[in-house]
Amino acid sequence: MIQYDLDFSKNIKAMKRSVIRELLKVTQSPDIISFAGGLPSPESFPIVPLKEIAIEVLEKNGTKALQYGATEGLPSLADELVKLMATDNVKIGKENLAITIASQQGLDLVGKIFLNPNDIAIVESPTYVGALSAFNSYRAKLIDVELDDDGMRMDKLKKTLADLKKKGKRPKFIYVIPDFHNPAGVTLSLERRKQLIEIARKEKIMIIEDSPYRMVRFRGKNIPSLYSMDRDGLVVSLFTFSKIFVPGFRLGWAIGPKEIIDKMIIAKQATDLCTPEFTQYMAASFLKKGLLIPTVKHTVSIYKEKNELMLEMLEKYMPKAKGVKWTKPDGGLFLWVTLPEKYDCDKLFQKAIDNKVAYVVGSAFYVGGKKKNSFRMNFSYPSMEQIRVGVKRLAEMIDEEIK
Amino acid sequence: MIQYDLDFSKNIKAMKRSVIRELLKVTQSPDIISFAGGLPSPESFPIVPLKEIAIEVLEKNGTKALQYGATEGLPSLADELVKLMATDNVKIGKENLAITIASQQGLDLVGKIFLNPNDIAIVESPTYVGALSAFNSYRAKLIDVELDDDGMRMDKLKKTLADLKKKGKRPKFIYVIPDFHNPAGVTLSLERRKQLIEIARKEKIMIIEDSPYRMVRFRGKNIPSLYSMDRDGLVVSLFTFSKIFVPGFRLGWAIGPKEIIDKMIIAKQATDLCTPEFTQYMAASFLKKGLLIPTVKHTVSIYKEKNELMLEMLEKYMPKAKGVKWTKPDGGLFLWVTLPEKYDCDKLFQKAIDNKVAYVVGSAFYVGGKKKNSFRMNFSYPSMEQIRVGVKRLAEMIDEEIK
Repeated sequence: MIQYDLDFSKNIKAMKRSVIRELLKVTQSPDIISFAGGLPSPESFPIVPLKEIAIEVLEKNGTKALQYGATEGLPSLADELVKLMATDNVKIGKENLAITIASQQGLDLVGKIFLNPNDIAIVESPTYVGALSAFNSYRAKLIDVELDDDGMRMDKLKKTLADLKKKGKRPKFIYVIPDFHNPAGVTLSLERRKQLIEIARKEKIMIIEDSPYRMVRFRGKNIPSLYSMDRDGLVVSLFTFSKIFVPGFRLGWAIGPKEIIDKMIIAKQATDLCTPEFTQYMAASFLKKGLLIPTVKHTVSIYKEKNELMLEMLEKYMPKAKGVKWTKPDGGLFLWVTLPEKYDCDKLFQKAIDNKVAYVVGSAFYVGGKKKNSFRMNFSYPSMEQIRVGVKRLAEMIDEEIK
Repeated sequence: MIQYDLDFSKNIKAMKRSVIRELLKVTQSPDIISFAGGLPSPESFPIVPLKEIAIEVLEKNGTKALQYGATEGLPSLADELVKLMATDNVKIGKENLAITIASQQGLDLVGKIFLNPNDIAIVESPTYVGALSAFNSYRAKLIDVELDDDGMRMDKLKKTLADLKKKGKRPKFIYVIPDFHNPAGVTLSLERRKQLIEIARKEKIMIIEDSPYRMVRFRGKNIPSLYSMDRDGLVVSLFTFSKIFVPGFRLGWAIGPKEIIDKMIIAKQATDLCTPEFTQYMAASFLKKGLLIPTVKHTVSIYKEKNELMLEMLEKYMPKAKGVKWTKPDGGLFLWVTLPEKYDCDKLFQKAIDNKVAYVVGSAFYVGGKKKNSFRMNFSYPSMEQIRVGVKRLAEMIDEEIK
């Protein structure tokens, strides 16, 4: 039908359809037990109070809730978020906060306001696939720094920065997922957080702290956020309601120095004018009624049970003796399984599907897809029974494959 | 607090806070009668049926409506939109449609997939300020083509394209608002639509048809959309629920050739993953119940009355004899007042505010803000009484200023 040559931008030519979203289509067959998604458990959704809240918002604030709103977000929701942040030792004013279309928009706006083509950004290896797409869409050069069970390795970060400095280059920012990392399931230790802040301060490099799962801790003690540890305006942090309330409202927030938040708001104005008022009113009411904390507690109790079962089943069936390892997250939705280096989990994916079980290939989470011997497993969405049956299935398949 | 030099991207440095949004703050004082906003009338919001629909969605589809969704949008809403488009002679399949965060996101995605820095795009003079910000955010070079009471002048367009050709340049697309133009209030005539399609076909240049007000016609006969007239896959059209249903859901849709819609979906994936499921379920139900058409009819009847009153008051009080002119729109939310060339409506704005009445300065709608002798008036939001009092106030102020 098109009677001419399409002349797309360099930006879009650099982008690909998300591998994960494509994989998810394969895994949606009802007889496949899927650990591939990243969905929160629908059992955690507070449907009953939301019915009451929807009616209340439409009756009390209908004409406002259905109207356009301010680009920076609904003031009453911002007030609630400032209070919520204060409970986590983060003292900000509303001028430090922008409400976004969940944290993916936060990532996009960070990319938009900081990244020119070929600008350098540091990411973890592996890192969140949505951050890779957001930053790649500005044609940034992403340099990855290895992580281990305590998060990003600071020795490696220092070396990377030193190497860049020798070439006269400096990164625009360091992007980290410090709490219950997606996909790796690990948490940045307090000691490393201190080092990271110190490195950033010394080198005057910003930190982008992406923390969607921070409130979803089911083991261990809380570790201060990077934002709360910073005294130099070095940190922008991204949060979302997707994992602690509902993803279907697409609501998140970014916090940071006023100068940066201002730029994010200007960029957002050109992107979508404003975040939906209706769901912001609903979320504000949900928070004002004190419903968020009990909802998170309920969610955490579900995920703890599922995570423990998944670890138990892995322990029981996965061929540890053959060098298969996995992370033991203290929170979040994911864990990360690593096979000996010579195995290719992209190729094994088809075998998993043949065995009616699915994961996400680890390569999707690496810059350039360079490592292939890992995969991500989600434990929030599958049922207890699916975890019981599915992990066994997967482990037996892997046991057969690995010599 | 920030202890380092912020190093923002070239893109964000090219962007400014929306003049209009800043003006709106001034005009929000309760004693000012404002024609400055672009808000639909809250009387048009279908609050009562939405209460029922919210409950129904949460009860029947709660776990799905609160979950993540597909980037391209909710299939059941897409089905309804395909049907709605068919009633306007547009025959598409779901593969030709992407649901967006209202039409501003449509504009942003068009910019993202087509515009490299310094790429040329043709726009109308004046044009929608949100399109200027979206395209400017990709640092495109915008070239404007004059419009008159029949929309963009095709003789001027041909000349602009010929001039560009001589320099070996070609635009990426021609951006037009054919129906009840914002800000100008004019409609592209059938004859010019035919010419535009012919020019685009001959020169193989895409057309971006932005039509948020198309269903809000209160006078005259429907003119076919550019999309319905095109046989060569030249047109991408952007629509929104903001002016025909509610802005507070931030829902819109883009239609176009599959190859282009595919790229928009890839770009959207990196931008916000997906549009909120909850409000999409609500909108799908609203359409399925056949409530959109009666809602639009009700809206149109309100706007017709307000528009007629505004025209009547302008006729009665505005100093026509001194060369003040205004457009007489057949639909939409805006009309456009032009003073003799030597008058500066940016400067007059403060006098208007002193007289407790507000408009939007026309310069905001021009590439580079180059013309200053016009302003935009909105008639959808103010009450009948405000129109009666406010237009008189404004006209008397102008009568005093103009010699």
